[in-house]
Amino acid sequence: MTTGTPREFFAVRSVAEALNGFRPARRTAIEAVALADARGRVPAKAVVASHDLPGFARSTVDGYAVRAGDTYGASEGLPGYLDVVGTVAMGEAPSVDVAPGCAVAIPTGAVLPPGADAVVMVEHTQQAMAGTIEILRPVAPGEGVVRADEDARAGDELVRPGRPLRAQDLGLLAAAGVVEVPVHARPRVAIIATGDEVVDPATAALETGQVRDASTLALAALVHEAGGEPLPRGIVADDRPALERALATAVADADVVVVSAGSSVGARDETATAVQALGPPGIWCRGLAIKPGKPTLLAECDGVPVIGLPGNPRSALVVFRCVGMPIVRRAGGWDVAPAAPATRARLSRDLASAAGRLDIVQVRVRDGVAVPLFGASALLSVLTAADGFVVVDEPATGLAADTEVEVTLYA
Amino acid sequence: MTTGTPREFFAVRSVAEALNGFRPARRTAIEAVALADARGRVPAKAVVASHDLPGFARSTVDGYAVRAGDTYGASEGLPGYLDVVGTVAMGEAPSVDVAPGCAVAIPTGAVLPPGADAVVMVEHTQQAMAGTIEILRPVAPGEGVVRADEDARAGDELVRPGRPLRAQDLGLLAAAGVVEVPVHARPRVAIIATGDEVVDPATAALETGQVRDASTLALAALVHEAGGEPLPRGIVADDRPALERALATAVADADVVVVSAGSSVGARDETATAVQALGPPGIWCRGLAIKPGKPTLLAECDGVPVIGLPGNPRSALVVFRCVGMPIVRRAGGWDVAPAAPATRARLSRDLASAAGRLDIVQVRVRDGVAVPLFGASALLSVLTAADGFVVVDEPATGLAADTEVEVTLYA
Repeated sequence: MTTGTPREFFAVRSVAEALNGFRPARRTAIEAVALADARGRVPAKAVVASHDLPGFARSTVDGYAVRAGDTYGASEGLPGYLDVVGTVAMGEAPSVDVAPGCAVAIPTGAVLPPGADAVVMVEHTQQAMAGTIEILRPVAPGEGVVRADEDARAGDELVRPGRPLRAQDLGLLAAAGVVEVPVHARPRVAIIATGDEVVDPATAALETGQVRDASTLALAALVHEAGGEPLPRGIVADDRPALERALATAVADADVVVVSAGSSVGARDETATAVQALGPPGIWCRGLAIKPGKPTLLAECDGVPVIGLPGNPRSALVVFRCVGMPIVRRAGGWDVAPAAPATRARLSRDLASAAGRLDIVQVRVRDGVAVPLFGASALLSVLTAADGFVVVDEPATGLAADTEVEVTLYA
Repeated sequence: MTTGTPREFFAVRSVAEALNGFRPARRTAIEAVALADARGRVPAKAVVASHDLPGFARSTVDGYAVRAGDTYGASEGLPGYLDVVGTVAMGEAPSVDVAPGCAVAIPTGAVLPPGADAVVMVEHTQQAMAGTIEILRPVAPGEGVVRADEDARAGDELVRPGRPLRAQDLGLLAAAGVVEVPVHARPRVAIIATGDEVVDPATAALETGQVRDASTLALAALVHEAGGEPLPRGIVADDRPALERALATAVADADVVVVSAGSSVGARDETATAVQALGPPGIWCRGLAIKPGKPTLLAECDGVPVIGLPGNPRSALVVFRCVGMPIVRRAGGWDVAPAAPATRARLSRDLASAAGRLDIVQVRVRDGVAVPLFGASALLSVLTAADGFVVVDEPATGLAADTEVEVTLYA
């Protein structure tokens, strides 16, 4: 029982301080992955082109390879005439040169034949007699052509470290013949649930007072979203030695450790005590200036970040999204912040907020109007009913109805 | 060779028409997945609560369970006095009732004992003599308490069909004891690359005229992003019978079929002819009013959508993102559009555009300024250099420098 304990002492920091100042050193190891498995993975080093791309001058249109100078002055009224001396086949080296006064038929993507410096689109030509075409518009040198090194030069950086690979990055790597990429291993994130009242979600019938563990599965989903690999560690009783053992094991084999605390003040104290028992540097803060989510503990043990989350699943999810996911990404080598889906909307009503605290307000968005959803922080249904959330910054004491706000949307 | 063919006939439709009007019937089958694997999966039916949640009235604070009426008029100057008759332990049924004039110590999350209708926070009480507390502030009935059915009532919809499951949805399902969800199977998306010039990305040294297949891997990544499962089918030569066989097999065992065509007009014609050979209803459009990506074919075969993409990987990726990913999502049971990361920025320069066509312009974004990136549509490096893209709508003939635009960001 905890109601007799004195008012809790919080070493409270702002969310911005936490994001900028809490920086445990741990980064995951580097491993090689096949390109087919590399989407969203984070390169650990730059990957450079070993040769020019595409590697040969290529036509970008269906038409005729020409010497641009041979087309100057051509028009519909006064076409130029060129002798068609051959054809380039797709995927093959040209077998014929383009001499002055000559043209070679060429499809999009084929190799520009020697002598040519431009391609006239077939739409700007007309069949004259057999073996001769009329040129109806002039082309400049380089027109209708991609240079041999225009997509990448040998030595160019194809992808940079620290930013997750996107579809187009994989495309460029494939084009360059890079079929394996050195990436950071996915950060392993141990998730420990605590609380004497907490039971496994598979428990069919609850005893009075029991609640099923909602946090572990939901946090595991956010760990996946942040590029990590969740290691669910089950439910640990509110018992100091048990929690110390679970924490010590987690710190030994995970890159990030998350503890969703029991919901009472006493249970939170247990987490702090168990973390301190792990040794220095220990606790970085015991609270964050955020609502919901104030009773959040950040600590470090051997370079491994330890995140103590509030016991309410809703508060735990809010604060893990704001503070925990960036910590997981950093451990996984990210050096950029991901782009979040967002929309602008007008507040349907006034929002009160205390200055000096970040308020995260869940909202529904309909027809450009953001309707705040309220309810006890124990209620998960407020989060499931929400389309996204509004952040009321620390200095603000509230926002008036009709204010245009940025709503971060749940993906 | 294709340059001798007449100007191509395009049955061109707008992107909006394609998104609204091209609606093959195929949806994937329903399967049950464990909650731990359900993130991002799309429920095929609503899931309802089998019982009230949390199932018992719960304290939301550390404090004392009381009859609210006993606290009316209490203040710091004139506190109320209540007898502390016991304690509720976490996770257990209360062993004591709250009679008039009495209080029971209770931690956050524990069961409200019979007789009580509110909880006074410990901060608003003071220890008087042994067994007695002073109440320093009154509470209203329901204060400090979550009702037994406040998170969900038996029969309430916990998640709805058609919207992918988010972290908080998994949390609520876990809390409700739902450990398996009926979801749509991931749509299987066959990806066929064609082109005599196209070779496997693992090809170390290219012959003149050859290019490595960049599209298959990049499209597979976008298929994953849309919740699908890519089935890469390798590179098929520009040869009608080979393409017809590959298409027939793909339609038989995939939910969506994607063909990245050879880049020449003739190669595109081959795709159309092969699709038509599969039988009715056949081709829905032969071109889209979009740049890049105009030579896009949409067809249907036995309810299976067939998407013929331009040969240039860059055009293929742009059009697959705009049109193909929605088709994959629909096959997988989505009935909502996903929220896309976006930002607002000012254009660094004028953008020309043809009316009646959707222009997708790749941009870099720095300090609120969107800098358009240009280059032949054959260049993948334009896409890898981009942070996102600007859509210039059909009616617009361009956008002036300094216009504020919405930039859809690559995740």
